[in-house]
Amino acid sequence: MKLVRYGERGAEQPGLIDAEGRLRSLVGHVPDIAGAVLEDLGALRALDVAALPLVEGEVRLGACVGGVGKFICIGLNYSDHAAESGMAVPPEPVIFAKFTSAICGPNDPILIPRGSVKTDWEVELAFVIGKRAKHVSEADALSHVAGYCLANDVSERAWQTERSGQWSKGKGSDNFGPLGPWLVTLDEIADPQNLPMWLEVNGERMQQGSTTSMVYGVAYLVSYLSQFFTLHPGDVISTGTPPGVGMGHKPPRYLKAGDVVTLGIDGLGTQRQLCVDEG
Amino acid sequence: MKLVRYGERGAEQPGLIDAEGRLRSLVGHVPDIAGAVLEDLGALRALDVAALPLVEGEVRLGACVGGVGKFICIGLNYSDHAAESGMAVPPEPVIFAKFTSAICGPNDPILIPRGSVKTDWEVELAFVIGKRAKHVSEADALSHVAGYCLANDVSERAWQTERSGQWSKGKGSDNFGPLGPWLVTLDEIADPQNLPMWLEVNGERMQQGSTTSMVYGVAYLVSYLSQFFTLHPGDVISTGTPPGVGMGHKPPRYLKAGDVVTLGIDGLGTQRQLCVDEG
Repeated sequence: MKLVRYGERGAEQPGLIDAEGRLRSLVGHVPDIAGAVLEDLGALRALDVAALPLVEGEVRLGACVGGVGKFICIGLNYSDHAAESGMAVPPEPVIFAKFTSAICGPNDPILIPRGSVKTDWEVELAFVIGKRAKHVSEADALSHVAGYCLANDVSERAWQTERSGQWSKGKGSDNFGPLGPWLVTLDEIADPQNLPMWLEVNGERMQQGSTTSMVYGVAYLVSYLSQFFTLHPGDVISTGTPPGVGMGHKPPRYLKAGDVVTLGIDGLGTQRQLCVDEG
Repeated sequence: MKLVRYGERGAEQPGLIDAEGRLRSLVGHVPDIAGAVLEDLGALRALDVAALPLVEGEVRLGACVGGVGKFICIGLNYSDHAAESGMAVPPEPVIFAKFTSAICGPNDPILIPRGSVKTDWEVELAFVIGKRAKHVSEADALSHVAGYCLANDVSERAWQTERSGQWSKGKGSDNFGPLGPWLVTLDEIADPQNLPMWLEVNGERMQQGSTTSMVYGVAYLVSYLSQFFTLHPGDVISTGTPPGVGMGHKPPRYLKAGDVVTLGIDGLGTQRQLCVDEG
């Protein structure tokens, strides 16, 4: 299934994308694409999709998962991106937090924060926890995952690395976490470690990679993170970015108002973001 | 007012502590001590406290604020603690995230995580956002704060600093974020920068300090953080710890099962935590 949340920000409704690519409403069947709904997707699978009401017209898509408790990112998880960042591949996963208030819809604008001169992009594969996970084995790990989605780990590099330590400062600004368009359930992705991915700015290809180059894969990450804390349904983990971020260009290249960022991962859809000054 | 949340974990009810120190129920008046309730405390102030039902018997206290979106901590915010950590006072606030799943009640056990050998304590003054804040001035900052509470920023030092970077890894384990007992509203704290604070392990005084030694004070922090992202009602910011953490002892001293941690800040109550192995 391709699960979505649509409508005004803060008042998104649950829906799904049918086999013909049409948006259908799940209102009345589940309260949201969030929490306990992710623990048991069987009820949604049992629905007669053709009987669900079509949602007509242009609607905004929200983040494909609601009520996110933890938004965890994995740093330097592609060996070639670590190299372009001038950092070594870490001996174990680097984790950092994005504040959940940064989460937005896949096509919402990127807000260039006031005073920012180094707003950057990062196409990433994210996954969403479906079942509570604590001290789970790598072999059992994927049974705790509800599905996958596309993420742009928007980052302010000066704030991340030049403003007194800890990356969180440059990772959690408003709208720095577009998620979606779809939460694609586990069964639709044969191999999460073999997904081509790309990102363009104004139509120019900036990032081109594949999750085959990921250092620590999805199953390993679930198991690893679950050693440190409990993962809960709705937690989102974004798994790092391949080479080609703005910071890695020579000279570096950053986003400015008017730029358009597009990105995609095979099977997970695409995002499109217009950059605007926060004002 | 001293606002509390009481009852079973995950099903806490709102309440307050009256002038005689008795717990009274706010059920039926507000849904929770959280979100929109914090934006307008006037309705609570208007209640006839004596008419609120007393809650009898021993009840568990939960974290004094629910529905926390961001749990932000300020690092190295006491000059003498920075010195004991072997680090310089930063030229601007260091911020890092605690995962909100770490939040627990003030007297819930400290869970020593499996494999942990460096679980440490940090008594801290925390404050809770009451009104949305973005690009606010220091002069206007406190009008965005609902109140203050006591926090223990429990930390696993090896995970924080020896396991591939970014402190979040050692800050967000389950039950690493006791908050409370009370959310004390702004009007009850004449000066947040003049509050004595202390922490003991098994009755032995480990930390003794005062918020007078804080490098970046509450009003400055609200203004500073609001440059980077929007602060929302219910966001919690914990402002750093004075000297005396286990890591700063020579030799270092860490928590083990059976230890009892007690801590307090004048006017904000006390916490008591029994350390148990997570298992």
